[in-house]
Amino acid sequence: MLEIIFQTLEKILPVSPSLLEKAQAHLDFLTKPPGSLGALEELAKRYVAIQNNESPTLKKISTVVFAADHGVTAEGISAYPPEVTPQMVMNFLNNGAAVNVLANHVNAEVTIVDIGVNFQFPSHPNLLDRKIALGTKNFAKEPSMTRSQAEKSIATGIEIATESAKNGFDILTTGEMGIGNTTPSSAIFSILGNIQVEDVTGRGTGIDDSALIKKISVIKKGIELHQPDPDDPIDILAKVGGFEIGGIAGLILGAAAQKIPIVVDGFISSAGAALALKMSPSAGDYIFPSHQSSEPGHKIFFDMLGHPPLFDLNMRLGEGTGALLAVNLIQSAVKIYNEMATFQSAGVSTKQTS
Amino acid sequence: MLEIIFQTLEKILPVSPSLLEKAQAHLDFLTKPPGSLGALEELAKRYVAIQNNESPTLKKISTVVFAADHGVTAEGISAYPPEVTPQMVMNFLNNGAAVNVLANHVNAEVTIVDIGVNFQFPSHPNLLDRKIALGTKNFAKEPSMTRSQAEKSIATGIEIATESAKNGFDILTTGEMGIGNTTPSSAIFSILGNIQVEDVTGRGTGIDDSALIKKISVIKKGIELHQPDPDDPIDILAKVGGFEIGGIAGLILGAAAQKIPIVVDGFISSAGAALALKMSPSAGDYIFPSHQSSEPGHKIFFDMLGHPPLFDLNMRLGEGTGALLAVNLIQSAVKIYNEMATFQSAGVSTKQTS
Repeated sequence: MLEIIFQTLEKILPVSPSLLEKAQAHLDFLTKPPGSLGALEELAKRYVAIQNNESPTLKKISTVVFAADHGVTAEGISAYPPEVTPQMVMNFLNNGAAVNVLANHVNAEVTIVDIGVNFQFPSHPNLLDRKIALGTKNFAKEPSMTRSQAEKSIATGIEIATESAKNGFDILTTGEMGIGNTTPSSAIFSILGNIQVEDVTGRGTGIDDSALIKKISVIKKGIELHQPDPDDPIDILAKVGGFEIGGIAGLILGAAAQKIPIVVDGFISSAGAALALKMSPSAGDYIFPSHQSSEPGHKIFFDMLGHPPLFDLNMRLGEGTGALLAVNLIQSAVKIYNEMATFQSAGVSTKQTS
Repeated sequence: MLEIIFQTLEKILPVSPSLLEKAQAHLDFLTKPPGSLGALEELAKRYVAIQNNESPTLKKISTVVFAADHGVTAEGISAYPPEVTPQMVMNFLNNGAAVNVLANHVNAEVTIVDIGVNFQFPSHPNLLDRKIALGTKNFAKEPSMTRSQAEKSIATGIEIATESAKNGFDILTTGEMGIGNTTPSSAIFSILGNIQVEDVTGRGTGIDDSALIKKISVIKKGIELHQPDPDDPIDILAKVGGFEIGGIAGLILGAAAQKIPIVVDGFISSAGAALALKMSPSAGDYIFPSHQSSEPGHKIFFDMLGHPPLFDLNMRLGEGTGALLAVNLIQSAVKIYNEMATFQSAGVSTKQTS
């Protein structure tokens, strides 16, 4: 394993229970019935404990969108042609996509990482060139990538998280673009969860019944052919994964090592997060889930993580859109923590003792 | 019935289906798979159709918090003493409560309406004095208020909505404060939904088992004693309601008459909204629900409205907090509508035809 991955895993520590308790104690002094802000209190508590700061800050937000292509699209498993991956990257760079709109809404900086798109982009200030290959191989025929490429994709994510920490970002959010990428994501969840492919495979951007049947059979074929080791996340990533999924896994590991909260977007980001969790269960303490996507396999992620999704808005776009909506809730939670009056300062009577 | 209520009901018209279709057509041109933003698209569509504006604006937000006291607290149905109502009103005016924090987060103006608090407040620029009485009567013994007071509470809400329209607000959000007010709310839902009191009654701000049993028996007693007419919302409000609940019902009717979107907060606001819906089913076209509260009776509201809650964060604070979180989602949706590139403008390929 690459040294940087090994070192990163060593640095990831669980969030301190005493810091969590301290944060909850502060929340209980605020002018509201204890626990009455529900999940907002959970968000605030964990955020404060991670940041280890009684006056938590949530100003600098970095949205990292990993883009890559997938050889498996040759099997006809997506509703959109593969050229949409570079076209959407250009749309991101031109500030025209949903992820841009929602990032602008919360004042997040968007970085697009070309980690394996089948296109040579002109240079652009918001585009990081970290291309590992011009897309993965078709895993219905050969492994998606080599083990060394899989490690490199994870290392890429780690490096970006480390750089973000140096640049003072308070929180990271994941995102991705890659036509065909619900297919490797379903494969990953089937293997990690030891669940039938049928039960973790959905319609992605909107395929019809016959394409769905094909998608399921392609995933089964890939798993059958390459026999990924369910206890070796790098093996899974190499055999049926994608470069952007490895990048996301690395970003999460890097954020956890740097003690930075990271918000995970939808199904594909969760596949990356699931690989990260398999490598380091403690990384889960730094992960804030966002939405429940329409993909059926997504529920496995929440079971692994032990935190429920914050909301279910029937979204299935990816890019990072769900994570950015969640940022708003986390911002709200942090402000509740920082700005509310206490019972004592406001002169409000506390609960009647019965 | 007061003339202003009658005139308001006459003015409420359903939202035009053709405007809804037109808005959806625009959403389908944007660079995302059709429908992939799920509930955000539904929010944008309805907002645009209500505003009848292809470049919708969501800048000026008014949060109206109705505060009132409840005679029924004499029965020991709340975890907090009644003096917390005026104490929390002062906390609102001092910008220290959760509703203030979340309103500041979305830049909403907060107006507190004293529609029936058992306290004489000093004047304050953010406090509207619309006191109808020093709290309701104890409905376990006599009707909460007279029919004339019930109408006056509704008229108060209508007047505030009309004034908001004149002042150019784009959207209204409801909120309330009143120790004991889950009790009248449960009574209202039991009557409107023709459902057992046990099934619509929860723990409010956090009562224990014995207080819950008492709360249920008090509600049953009130309904048994006064026999509110389930087809007469004003009769229900008068016999087992509260002044803030009437104010919220009026605010919703007024917003619908003025064609202004209105976001409904949690359980108590929904009881007001349910009365408004009973008076004018078309008012529902202007209502944006927010969260599913922890109160079991809340689901009746969503059934009546025909729109599901946007999220369930286990919140049970009220004040307007859930509605303000929803505003953020509506803002996100409106920005998606206004700011995303189209497939054509971005040069992105559309879906493959199979």
